[in-house]
Amino acid sequence: MITGMKNIKTRVLSSETPNHVGEEIMLQGFIHSRRDHGKLIFIDLRDRTGITQIIFNPQASESAHKTASDIRPEYVVSIKGLVKNRPEKLVNEKIASGTVEIEAKEVEILSKAESLPFDMGGEELNLELPTLLDHRSLTLRHEKVKKIFEIQAALIEEFRNASKELDCIEVVVPTIAAGATEGGAEVFSIDYFGHNAFLTQSPQLYKQIMVSVFERVFLIAKAYRAEPSVTTRHLTESTQLDVEIAFIKGFDELLDALEFVGTQMIKNVSEKYPEVLKEFGVDKPLIPIKIPRLTLREAQEIISKRTNRDLSKEMDLNPEDEREISEWAKIEHKSDFITITHFPTKKRAFYTMPDPENPEYSLSYDLLFKGLEMMSGAQRINNYEDLELAMKRKDVNPDNFGLYMQAFKYGMPPEGGFSFGLERLTMKLLELANVREASLFPRDMERIDERFSKTEEKTIQEK
Amino acid sequence: MITGMKNIKTRVLSSETPNHVGEEIMLQGFIHSRRDHGKLIFIDLRDRTGITQIIFNPQASESAHKTASDIRPEYVVSIKGLVKNRPEKLVNEKIASGTVEIEAKEVEILSKAESLPFDMGGEELNLELPTLLDHRSLTLRHEKVKKIFEIQAALIEEFRNASKELDCIEVVVPTIAAGATEGGAEVFSIDYFGHNAFLTQSPQLYKQIMVSVFERVFLIAKAYRAEPSVTTRHLTESTQLDVEIAFIKGFDELLDALEFVGTQMIKNVSEKYPEVLKEFGVDKPLIPIKIPRLTLREAQEIISKRTNRDLSKEMDLNPEDEREISEWAKIEHKSDFITITHFPTKKRAFYTMPDPENPEYSLSYDLLFKGLEMMSGAQRINNYEDLELAMKRKDVNPDNFGLYMQAFKYGMPPEGGFSFGLERLTMKLLELANVREASLFPRDMERIDERFSKTEEKTIQEK
Repeated sequence: MITGMKNIKTRVLSSETPNHVGEEIMLQGFIHSRRDHGKLIFIDLRDRTGITQIIFNPQASESAHKTASDIRPEYVVSIKGLVKNRPEKLVNEKIASGTVEIEAKEVEILSKAESLPFDMGGEELNLELPTLLDHRSLTLRHEKVKKIFEIQAALIEEFRNASKELDCIEVVVPTIAAGATEGGAEVFSIDYFGHNAFLTQSPQLYKQIMVSVFERVFLIAKAYRAEPSVTTRHLTESTQLDVEIAFIKGFDELLDALEFVGTQMIKNVSEKYPEVLKEFGVDKPLIPIKIPRLTLREAQEIISKRTNRDLSKEMDLNPEDEREISEWAKIEHKSDFITITHFPTKKRAFYTMPDPENPEYSLSYDLLFKGLEMMSGAQRINNYEDLELAMKRKDVNPDNFGLYMQAFKYGMPPEGGFSFGLERLTMKLLELANVREASLFPRDMERIDERFSKTEEKTIQEK
Repeated sequence: MITGMKNIKTRVLSSETPNHVGEEIMLQGFIHSRRDHGKLIFIDLRDRTGITQIIFNPQASESAHKTASDIRPEYVVSIKGLVKNRPEKLVNEKIASGTVEIEAKEVEILSKAESLPFDMGGEELNLELPTLLDHRSLTLRHEKVKKIFEIQAALIEEFRNASKELDCIEVVVPTIAAGATEGGAEVFSIDYFGHNAFLTQSPQLYKQIMVSVFERVFLIAKAYRAEPSVTTRHLTESTQLDVEIAFIKGFDELLDALEFVGTQMIKNVSEKYPEVLKEFGVDKPLIPIKIPRLTLREAQEIISKRTNRDLSKEMDLNPEDEREISEWAKIEHKSDFITITHFPTKKRAFYTMPDPENPEYSLSYDLLFKGLEMMSGAQRINNYEDLELAMKRKDVNPDNFGLYMQAFKYGMPPEGGFSFGLERLTMKLLELANVREASLFPRDMERIDERFSKTEEKTIQEK
């Protein structure tokens, strides 16, 4: 029966094993867990399609059994063996290969692993955030952690699909800029062949230029913020999903577009991965046909009534306010989304269009999802002179934005757009506690992969 | 007949006009060109779907005719008018709206434009590269320039499709790193809250980590190279299309995969946009069923025979060699592609797997397309100790690559991958003379949007 095993060269994936009952096959993957029952050794082998149970019985193969007694979690192995149906009462319905088990005949170690610093075999990883991130290359392998990034990939995909439905074309814009993009947040500066340069705080100015070319664009871009603050919602390097559309009929078309893209992403991903949402203990998102829309002032009045706090002098919603108004939307409109419009002009970036009916407020908006702002945007000023004036009011020098101003100099249609924060969106959809959990390799003040304190300790030791 | 025109609020796109003959519609777009025939004024209006001819006849509307006599190219306008069939001999088959023309009744200027610095109306723009880039926000609007980036968007799309066919999942990796990615090229350094950081030269190390999580990944990422050289093929900020796959059967599986992705992109885009290739004077790419594969040494022997040059001491192909061997592939194999393998181990990055049969050469490859390297990659070292040794040989300190080494410490399957340069690919597919033409906003030693010399003049003038 063993004759010819060496010649099996095609890997069978875990999920395919039930189609090979009675056959000898080769499986490859990581040791997920090992249970030593004296004579019998059971191994859960993990590949990209799931887990397969392998039985090492010395009567089937003494050498394989011997190797199996030495291997540990995360070893990478190639296993040849016989696919057998499990007895009915041992069928595991939770996994795709749950009707079968493999009787191992040969095992080859492809890569060894050190002893794990913590147990990776449980359904939950239960680590403190610094430990989770200090061991990121390991913890990302945990099934539940992995699922966060399967959801993230799906969100990107649905973002692209929704943008294409809006007739947008994808563009690639730069991250190195000569002028700082907007006011407000601090920027990271680069030494660029002896010249000053910056990492863009957003792809904003470039996507605006691009609507004068393609009318409707989308892009996936990095945004860099050097704000020296540590919160559960901020990363220094984050990913933006951006849309910009021109020849808009008016402000309402922008609101329709942003709500379309926002809800399509959440709706489609939730429907495609109900089991992941369930695993994260998340209810199906509430998405009514019409997302509630309030101006900032209307939202503040509602919050004031609910909390007896006076917000009449506040220029923005703070995180507590965002949670409060989202709670209202959930109760009153059965919606996990709410759109807030008309933020004060002076609190928004220079390119934001003031409301012609009341220029103190702007044609701007935030989309809140489950209590958190996960999208922001506005109609833009598209007249050259108005833009120049708005820049000067904010102490921004138009001379530092040559190509941007050029686009307006040669005619710019009425336009606007919006930008989703990918990591925030992932965080809120799965109700994670910290945005760092929604970034493969999160960057913040204290860490680039490794904590700086740790790196510095190392340097000191070297000296 | 004019009654009710004000109430038309829905924009009709240029390509849809033939469906509205006899109706009054609203069109919006940019003035592409204007021809003043005394009494009649003809305007070509441009929107994202194409060009529409508008006729301004004072007998149809005196006020519209008056406005039309003032408007210039790149003005943004909203025009209401009657759709009429053109006389048969005036039908323009080159454009989607070529069977109709619009008799203007009303025109509203949405945004004005300065006089253009050069003619934008011709089929070719015919500008020197510096002029093309100094006016980038304007020149990108030229129909032929625009098409470069329609092709680029299509290449990205086909890259994603091909990667998904390989069962890869999309990942988002960082661009700010604490250690420089590889040896060789210079890096841009960032002040990161007082710590040293760099812009990644490639997403390489992170995509390798990610195959220990997902087995097969793809990504679209920025790559930064601070090489102080100005060539027609290099940008300081470029876009990479990357694939990395684990549990490979061997080197050949990698070659199959890279040739699959490379040819799928070029083939599908060429078949979807034959008219664009024609406009750029490009023949349909030659893609045989089997892409020719040569080792570097084999390629050098062929080149030596063809040119009588001695290459036996050369460690790589220079641009002239690349053109020569591509010429050979075209003649001998009717192929615009050729895969070159087995570059010297010491010329490749530390993570490259040496060929076990002759460790002086490595399991590496370049894919050439029409005489230019547009993809590079290799099988990787996946054993921790071997990797550590390889790093030390190249004077790379493993301590600076904490999370990367961690992935290998906990078991790494046999794996490899490859990376396409998006701008180079776009350049070669359309046979552009310079890679800068294939980047919306190219960055190089001399320019971030505006030329530094220009910026500095400005600063001096300000003083």
